[in-house]
Order: sequence, then C-alpha cells, then structure tokens
Amino acid sequence: MKPSIPKGTRDFLPSEVRRRDYIFSVIKKHFRRFGYQPIETPVMENLATLTGKYGEEGDKLLFKVLNNGNFLGKADADALAAKDSDKVLASISKRGLRYDLTVPFARYVVMHQNDLAFPFKRYAIMPVWRADRPQKGRYQEFYQCDADVVGSDSLFYEAELTQLLDGVFHELGLKAVIRLNNRKILAGLAEIAGMADNMMDMTIAIDKLDKIGWDKVAEDLTSRGANAGALQVIKQFLDAKSLDSVAPLLADSEIGKEGIAELQEVFDLIKQSSPLPRGEGFGEGVYNRLEFDVTLARGLNYYTGAIWEVAVDTDAPGQENIKMGSIAGGGRYADLTSIFGMKDMPGVGVSFGAERIYDVLEELDAFPADASEDLQYLIVCLDKETLNHGFGLVSRLRARGVHADLYPKAGKLQKMLKYADQRNAPKVVIIGSREAESGEYSVKTMGTGEQETLREEKL
Amino acid sequence: MKPSIPKGTRDFLPSEVRRRDYIFSVIKKHFRRFGYQPIETPVMENLATLTGKYGEEGDKLLFKVLNNGNFLGKADADALAAKDSDKVLASISKRGLRYDLTVPFARYVVMHQNDLAFPFKRYAIMPVWRADRPQKGRYQEFYQCDADVVGSDSLFYEAELTQLLDGVFHELGLKAVIRLNNRKILAGLAEIAGMADNMMDMTIAIDKLDKIGWDKVAEDLTSRGANAGALQVIKQFLDAKSLDSVAPLLADSEIGKEGIAELQEVFDLIKQSSPLPRGEGFGEGVYNRLEFDVTLARGLNYYTGAIWEVAVDTDAPGQENIKMGSIAGGGRYADLTSIFGMKDMPGVGVSFGAERIYDVLEELDAFPADASEDLQYLIVCLDKETLNHGFGLVSRLRARGVHADLYPKAGKLQKMLKYADQRNAPKVVIIGSREAESGEYSVKTMGTGEQETLREEKL
Repeated sequence: MKPSIPKGTRDFLPSEVRRRDYIFSVIKKHFRRFGYQPIETPVMENLATLTGKYGEEGDKLLFKVLNNGNFLGKADADALAAKDSDKVLASISKRGLRYDLTVPFARYVVMHQNDLAFPFKRYAIMPVWRADRPQKGRYQEFYQCDADVVGSDSLFYEAELTQLLDGVFHELGLKAVIRLNNRKILAGLAEIAGMADNMMDMTIAIDKLDKIGWDKVAEDLTSRGANAGALQVIKQFLDAKSLDSVAPLLADSEIGKEGIAELQEVFDLIKQSSPLPRGEGFGEGVYNRLEFDVTLARGLNYYTGAIWEVAVDTDAPGQENIKMGSIAGGGRYADLTSIFGMKDMPGVGVSFGAERIYDVLEELDAFPADASEDLQYLIVCLDKETLNHGFGLVSRLRARGVHADLYPKAGKLQKMLKYADQRNAPKVVIIGSREAESGEYSVKTMGTGEQETLREEKL
Repeated sequence: MKPSIPKGTRDFLPSEVRRRDYIFSVIKKHFRRFGYQPIETPVMENLATLTGKYGEEGDKLLFKVLNNGNFLGKADADALAAKDSDKVLASISKRGLRYDLTVPFARYVVMHQNDLAFPFKRYAIMPVWRADRPQKGRYQEFYQCDADVVGSDSLFYEAELTQLLDGVFHELGLKAVIRLNNRKILAGLAEIAGMADNMMDMTIAIDKLDKIGWDKVAEDLTSRGANAGALQVIKQFLDAKSLDSVAPLLADSEIGKEGIAELQEVFDLIKQSSPLPRGEGFGEGVYNRLEFDVTLARGLNYYTGAIWEVAVDTDAPGQENIKMGSIAGGGRYADLTSIFGMKDMPGVGVSFGAERIYDVLEELDAFPADASEDLQYLIVCLDKETLNHGFGLVSRLRARGVHADLYPKAGKLQKMLKYADQRNAPKVVIIGSREAESGEYSVKTMGTGEQETLREEKL
C-alpha cells in the first residue's frame, strides 16, 4: 500500500516547521507583550455550537465527526432509505472540527465568564478546518492567529492593535500597508447617498474600486439601485481619500460623524504615543504605511466599528512583485456572545494570515538565515575506537545546553559531511585517534569550509 | 442555548495554558538539544493509513470524519436498510483523526524518504484523539510528546534517550525512577523456562509482580502453561534483580546474552560519559534513579530491544504520596515502516506523558512561580485626563519589549487592583495627575503591597 494524506492537508519537513515556528513565535511574542493571554479550546466542538454560525455555505464546509459505535442505530429509517444526507446527519454526528477561532472563543467566554477578568484579552494560534475545494495556497487544515479583547469599547484597543500589527510586520522585516476604516463611516455614506437600506450592496461594490475602476463600480452600483445623485455623492467621497476631506461630506450624518471622530482619535493616539525612534516610519507613529481607506469594507457583516486590512506594501523596494491579498485584518464588533445567550460583550480583534505571510517571506527570501537551522555541532568520528569518546563529548556539550549530535558510526568523512549538510549543521567536529588523545578537535565550518583546532571549552 | 463542549475534551484557562506550555517547552528544549527535529503531520489522516494499525479495539476508538456533501450518495442501500454501521462506514468516511504519533510518523518517513537524512531524528508534540470512555485523567483529546530516531540500530541512541529522559525530569524538578529492560532478556528467559512460544503470556504475568506478589504471579503463570521447572527458573530470575546476577542465568540463551550485553553497554556508556557535576545523582551517571528492571515488559508487542518506563520516585522526599503510573516510556523496535512497504527501518524512541506530568507537578506544587504569570506591569489611571499619558507609557514600555497593559478606563483604585490580581500582574503602575506631570510613577508590588516611586527608565 502506498501511503498518502488527505487532499488539502500537508506534512511539514523540519526546515518548514522551523520557519513556520519563527512566524508564530514573532506573532506570539507581540501578543504577549501587549498583554494578550493564551487560551486553548478543543479541536472538536459540538455541532450545536458550530452549525448556523457561518451561514448556509459555512455549514456545508464544516467537517463532521461520526458518532462512535453503532452510529446508524438511532438514524431515521425513512431518511436512510431516501439517502437524505442532511436529515440523517443530526442522528449520526454530534461533533465537528472547529471552523475558525471566533465562535469557539465566544463559547469559551460564555462558559468561563466567572473565571475571566474583563476586559479579557486572549490570543490563540491554532489550526482550523474547512472543507473548501483545495487549491494553490488554500488548504483544508490551516492555522489562524487571533488576538481579541472583549468587554470594553475603549478606542485604546484600536490604537494598540494597530501598533501590534505594525510591530509584528516590522519584526518580520516585511513592509506593510495597514489600511484602516470604520464601518460607521460607510454607514454614514450609505445614509447620505440614500442607500442606508442596502449598505451591504454599496460596500461590496465600493470594495472592488482598486480592481475594476470607477466606471465599473458605478455600473455595479446602478444595478444595485443607486441613482445618479447617489453615484455623485459616492464618487466625491471616494475621491476625498483623507479623513479631513471626508469629514465635511458626512456633516449631516450622526453615525458618519461618529465614525470620523473615532478614527481620528485612533490616529491621534497612535501618533502621540509613538515609541518609534526619530526618523523611522512614515510620520504616523508606526513603522509601516498606515492609511485611512474609505473603500475598505471587509465582507463580514459582523463588524460595527474599526476595520483593518493589511497588505504587502508593493511600493517598498524589493517588494514590487509580490502578488498577495490580505495578510492580516480585523475589526470591532458590538456583540460577540449573544448567540450563546450572553449580552453586552463588545470586542475588537485582529488576525494574522500566517500561511500567506510564510509564502511572502519565502518569495522575498526574508527568513532569517538561522530560522531553519537548529543543530550547532555535528560530531563525526573517523574510526570506531573514537566513537565512545565522541559520545562523551556530545553528552557534555548537551549538558551545557549546546545543541549537538553524534553521527553514530565511524565512516568516510565525505559521507558524514554530507549528512551534516542535510542536517543543516553549521559546524562539524571531526575526531580521529589523535584528536581523541589530545582533546584538540578539528572544527569545520560548513558554509566556508574553514577548519580550526579547538578544545572542548571553546565549543 | 447553553453552550458546552464534547465530553472528554477540555478548555484551558490562560494560567493552565501557560503551565502546560512550561512542560512542553522543557521537553522541547531537550529534544532540540539532543538533535531531534520537529515535524508536523495533519490532524486528519486517511482511514486507510490508520485502520488495522491499533488492533480491533483501536479501530473502534478511531474518530472518523464524515465525507462532505451528499455523503450517503454512494452508500450501499442494503447496508443502510440493515443499519449495518460497519459496512456503511467505508462508503461515508475516508478520513479519521490521528490516534497516536507513531503511525503518522511511519507514513511520513515512507512518503518523504528522499527528503530525509538517515539516521532521522524527529520529535513531535501534538494532540491525538481516542474515543475512550472519558474518566478522571483520561481524555478523548490529549497531547503526546514523542522523540524517535529511525534508520540506525546504534546503542548510542539508547544511551542518549536515557540521558534525555533524565535531563527533562531533572529540569522539571521531579525525582524519577527510570526503569530499563530489554526484550531480548525476556525472550531469553522465555527460552530457558521453556515458554518461548508463549513469551507474551509470560511477560504479562511477570509484569504484575509489583502489584500482586509472587504467589499470584506463579498461579497466573501456571494457568498460562508454566510447569514447576519453569516457575523455578522464573523465580530465580526475578530474585536476581541486578544485571550481573541475571547474566549467568541466561548463559545458555544466545538472545538472552545479547540482551544482557546490549543493556550493559548502554549502562556503561551512560556512566562513562556522565556530564553530571561530582556528587550528583545515584552514581549511574544520571540525576535520577536508573534501574535495570527485569519485570518491565510494556504491553506493546512491537518492541524488540530496550524498553523504558519512567515513574515518580516515591522514595524521594516530598514525593511519597504521589500515586501515578508511568509518566514516560519507550523502546526499540526492529521495524517502523514495513506496514507501508518500506523495509529495514529500525528505530528507538521515547514518549512523555505530559498530561500526567502536569497533574504530578500540580500536586507537588512544583511549577515555577512565574509559570502562570506573563504580564510584567499593569498601568492604571486615577482620572480620565491621565489615560492618554498612560497609553503613551504602555506604548513605550512595549516597544522596549516589556509585557505591559493599560486598564482602559479611569476608575476606583481598589477595583483596578483587583483586575491586576486577576491578571496575575506582579506590579502595578499608578498614574494620577501629579505622576503624569512629574513622570515619577507609583509602582505597587502586588505580592507584598510595597510601593515605590520610579521613573519610566527604571521600569
């Protein structure tokens, strides 16, 4: 039998795991620094928790786990005879794999509300599962990296999450554009354009401006019910670009003004509290390009205030050719938990697309040189008699915390050096009978081929 | 709707995640130090990979994932009508959740053999799933922590894995007994006792010596076909205890002598290469108690050479009352991958019972004091006007790598200190209008209640 893995899933080689871990560890470091705390939830959730939370399409993409034992025992005989999968499902499966980290988080907050201190700030870096058709860059099993704070509507969190996004990409050595908008501004626009009842339609059309240009957007808007007046208002709005020039256009909309004020406060907070060294960044208080983007809508209906979307900055030198959509995003929501019966739990959060960030760093060759290497020394012995000496040396090195390994047989140097290369060992300690006697070891640097003689203490 | 999670699964609070992470990180640190490399495999495997690998009982305990879409479409109508779950299964489910880390590892080695350098040393710290009946300390979703090396039969690996087990428990501050035996010794005993054909029966009986005493073991052995001569040989053997006194009893068994020689070499290697400071440990070259245990058999048929089992040392001061079975174990196997068509792949590995180690450390109150705390400073503001000042301070602290958080509203000090306590913050920075002006902050140490005045640079 030739083994395989399910389509849409992946194995990772050690060098890949290490580079993935590098990304996760940078994200985790900033999450922790900003006071977000780790929680863990099970991979399997009750289907009652998951079903109906992601729309009809989402329900179809949930992986369902079969009940154990004689699972057909309680199934409806008529539904079985009719091969009615939907109807049979409820009687043969009561668990599913988590689809995202948000719904399990909501469930968690409700179940553990008495053990949590609010505002509650949590992060989670865990895999999720979706039965999407697998394609390049899209998997059925992939990681999400989320940080959220719930139980407060303070704008300090919008400011700090912007700083957090900024800090992560700065540390990863990736120049990013952090785009920020506020749903209330879009609601204001819909109001003054007379499209308050189909705001969703409006934002979907506007969202495509970058890709298809104004003429097509206008066509689309018209087909969605915008009249000539609405088109004019919207065009003016999209041309405005900066917060200052948008503000007067929203003077007649209460919600629109609120959105402007909130966003202005967030930008001010970031600028005033900037921890950047002088001369760094774009003058907005962050390392990366931070922009107000009135076209930014993000699909999720769910958001009610700030929304972020982060992309690779293709204006930055060396990054011109990167074709990649959003690499992080997030937003504020008025209500996390009422689906589980707990009211008044507003929150705000961001999420990193670690899999896409991996692809970008790979394409830019921007992983640190040591991100895929772990071993410090490989010890090789030229003859059998020195192997035990080699084992003593490797034991003592490890006890000192050095990452070291011993090639377990005496062999041809060439073969052992090849193994060192495959193991990504930067240095090789070569032991022959003379070295074993004198304690003066030949140490070869794999990258340069340089060789020096060192005593154990110097390793 | 009142939310819940599937029985046998768990949510973890931040303090629990941190303490679990502490254990994982100690184990991982030693895995890396000893040259083991991380790999990752999918949570979902093809059922064809998993089925038949864990015996009939294991097959029943596999969690199976329903095919997506109209899963009943291809199901056999007669089997459905008869509600024959076993027969229907193959047509409605082709994936399952991994049951352990060994079978996926074997599959991985076969699939990626051309990308791996042998001896290949890998570790994995990942959850597995078993549909066991949940009970205290037994979960349906739990972590395994495995390190294995495949592609070599060198005894250096037996020696280093013993050092690795020793190093992990030493660093965790847990005194352990590491018991070591060799299947070949048991095979030799079976040979000389005339029980070569029912060696498994013999080892199962012997394995219980500790719990039920010799008389009951003898009864059991008799019922399994041992005659009086066999009983005498076995009794003599069990009384021998040390390797030296067992050796002469096995003089007539080739395989038995091989087992003795192997074990002797492993003990010698460990002792000779001991990196321990003088006076530490029990004189065997390791920190913990290292013992030859001829009764140690371990259930798995699978092992062919060395076998380990590690338990809490209840002779150690303070650990007398710990009732816990094996907290780590492992062994050598002649063949990992032939189930997937790849021959000659011997290996040896160990596995840590992280969930049990957690319970033991909890019971001994042996987690480091800072294992569940992460935040260094919580900043609280006494009035609204100083909040922005507080935000500036927290931004600058974080930029310096300090783990800091800001309570987002001005409030009563008592309430904010309670929040600091719930967040496990060791220090609280208190800002009133005077502090904001002078830059001299009141810093309260939560543990002692002490208060001092510090400038930002001193935080």
